[in-house]
Amino acid sequence: MKRRDFLKEAAVVAAGAAVTACGIKGFKSSEAAKAEADSLARADSIAAAEARKPRAYQALPGNRLSLSWEPYELQLRHTFAVSGSSRNSTPGVQVRISYDGFVGYGEASMPPYLGHSVKSVCAFLSKLRLGRFGDPFMLEDIMDYVNSCAVRSEDGNLSDGPARAAVDMALHDLFGKLLGQPLWRIYGLDPAKAPNTSYTIGMDTPEVMAEKTREVAGRFKVLKVKVGQPNDMQMIDAVRSASDLPIVVDANQGWTDRMKALYEIYELKDRGVQMVEQPMPASMPDDIAWLRERSPLPIFADEALQGMADLRRVKGVYDGVNIKLMKCGGLLEARRMQSYARAEGMKVMLGCMTETSCAVSAAAQISPGVDFADLDGNLLISNDPFTGVGVSGGKIILRNLPGLGLNIRK
Amino acid sequence: MKRRDFLKEAAVVAAGAAVTACGIKGFKSSEAAKAEADSLARADSIAAAEARKPRAYQALPGNRLSLSWEPYELQLRHTFAVSGSSRNSTPGVQVRISYDGFVGYGEASMPPYLGHSVKSVCAFLSKLRLGRFGDPFMLEDIMDYVNSCAVRSEDGNLSDGPARAAVDMALHDLFGKLLGQPLWRIYGLDPAKAPNTSYTIGMDTPEVMAEKTREVAGRFKVLKVKVGQPNDMQMIDAVRSASDLPIVVDANQGWTDRMKALYEIYELKDRGVQMVEQPMPASMPDDIAWLRERSPLPIFADEALQGMADLRRVKGVYDGVNIKLMKCGGLLEARRMQSYARAEGMKVMLGCMTETSCAVSAAAQISPGVDFADLDGNLLISNDPFTGVGVSGGKIILRNLPGLGLNIRK
Repeated sequence: MKRRDFLKEAAVVAAGAAVTACGIKGFKSSEAAKAEADSLARADSIAAAEARKPRAYQALPGNRLSLSWEPYELQLRHTFAVSGSSRNSTPGVQVRISYDGFVGYGEASMPPYLGHSVKSVCAFLSKLRLGRFGDPFMLEDIMDYVNSCAVRSEDGNLSDGPARAAVDMALHDLFGKLLGQPLWRIYGLDPAKAPNTSYTIGMDTPEVMAEKTREVAGRFKVLKVKVGQPNDMQMIDAVRSASDLPIVVDANQGWTDRMKALYEIYELKDRGVQMVEQPMPASMPDDIAWLRERSPLPIFADEALQGMADLRRVKGVYDGVNIKLMKCGGLLEARRMQSYARAEGMKVMLGCMTETSCAVSAAAQISPGVDFADLDGNLLISNDPFTGVGVSGGKIILRNLPGLGLNIRK
Repeated sequence: MKRRDFLKEAAVVAAGAAVTACGIKGFKSSEAAKAEADSLARADSIAAAEARKPRAYQALPGNRLSLSWEPYELQLRHTFAVSGSSRNSTPGVQVRISYDGFVGYGEASMPPYLGHSVKSVCAFLSKLRLGRFGDPFMLEDIMDYVNSCAVRSEDGNLSDGPARAAVDMALHDLFGKLLGQPLWRIYGLDPAKAPNTSYTIGMDTPEVMAEKTREVAGRFKVLKVKVGQPNDMQMIDAVRSASDLPIVVDANQGWTDRMKALYEIYELKDRGVQMVEQPMPASMPDDIAWLRERSPLPIFADEALQGMADLRRVKGVYDGVNIKLMKCGGLLEARRMQSYARAEGMKVMLGCMTETSCAVSAAAQISPGVDFADLDGNLLISNDPFTGVGVSGGKIILRNLPGLGLNIRK
């Protein structure tokens, strides 16, 4: 028996027999034995902690950040139709930031309707001189510099959201890898509070939509349908015919008559819809405010919102906001917007574009506690170069891996 | 010579003599040699990074957070006088949170005029059951719980700011220690952007104030004077007689007539004063807004502001806000307020109470980039149990030590 085990036992025995044991010559008093056992247990715990002490990474003089990128084409599993357009692939640019043998990954995804292209993203990235930075921990300074290379429009928003988001993501991935911890942990968040993600049932014939719904209904807890078409209720009914799951809808600015929009929203509510994204054009805030006052469902801003400047404007007009990394320029800004929206009592949704697991995993890092998540972009493509965040029983599963939690797919 | 060194040299030689060397039998082509050297150099860099890879701490099952605390009395170097009261000591409560042999330190400081006491702080701490938490990284959840133990008043503020701040600080200190990094680094901040701290010249006779100013003028870049007394200009002139340093003033709600306040502010500006804190009572927002419109100096809120709820109210009334950990309940909330204030275009100041280096070092972690810092609380006491953040040439010096960057003074 080791001395410390003996002492622990002795303390227990002595405590039980304190009256008789106390003061007997050759025996420690029970208090003294207990104190010594406690002290040894404490020393054990400290020694154990010492052995597991973090080995902290320190930036080394002479090392510099190095940025590289590569365009690629994301292949969609199904043709993607929104109000006004449809497509089979989406262009993307993968970004890497290297430092001292560590590599952080980021991604720019450019849905054509936002006016970005591989060319515009690469032109922006070409302007950046990240080699001026020798300390990869200085996220605020580096992103201030990156943002200073964009153009601020009259409405206060910065240009080049996807390119800035890609750099921000790669920096955060690197940051987490240097700390050896997932970002959600560095942010102090509880991965168990990651939300369910909705899964989008693309616009199609009622038969195909019902079929698609049957295929996925067992794997998700919320479905999303793009509305704003003449046959909205038909599509919802088709999904409803195959599943009782809650539905959220995104009108993508599709309605322009507020009375009609209100009527549609009541119809949607009757069909178990829980939330409406961007019912009317972002340019019609007064109508949207009117609609929101009367709407039985919460109204979320999507197209009306890029960065913080818009967030201040949509406050009071919408119930909540759909924050997307590609719109706002990355995690730093997204976290600020999240915090601001909460302070203003607004609901928060996290959305994505058609993206690989890289950008989706980045958004997922800040997802614990949001009201809605629509982080299915990586599930909709067939050539994802990464594995990252998972989905189980409809819920986002954050991985216990450093940074964005990515592995490169073999 | 090691193979890789040889190859590096060979590549350089070969590159210089590319035309003649290329294709000569028995020699690698210069491109091939260069590629191999590059590849080895890359392998070296990756091996070096591997050797410095962070060893990430992981919470172990069975470990629980453990909270303890101890009241103490902070002894002031000089009698501290503000508009309406004076004192020689301040009560405080030191808080420790232990986990797996790591210990995080926090502190509650209770200036009597805010209605907190050792008794109220200890009563609040006694209510907490931190043992329910097994993962010290879940800052948001733990602080949500701590905040839920406080009482929300009608104006939206939470009670027990100092006690909550103490727990928040200790959690953050522990958090940084588990990550092996200072908080400022985890926050992505540049320690070189830490601000100058002002140093307060306490109210006294003109002769003593001039003498005190002469004593410290060489060590600081900004001086602070408490005004709101009949003899304000005399005090400022006394300081001015001994130093040309910029001065900021804190009226502690001392003026109640807005015309008189405006007149005083013009007089102060003529004497090189740069900012005015809380010129009039927090309960007179209309007068303060009137004053701000006309004031040649920026007006900051102090008593008007505890947490986020107040921040939304003082927006538009003041130019900036003085955020203090003891008022808002810790770093998590202070960071949210900082972010919100920035989004609203407000200036940010970080302040403190009479505190040890523990709480001052906590506030200093988020100081890079703020407009004003008044973090001299630890310099005003004679029995600081810690060493932490330093001041050099008037500027706050953040240390490269984990968590809050504290050492216990021997």
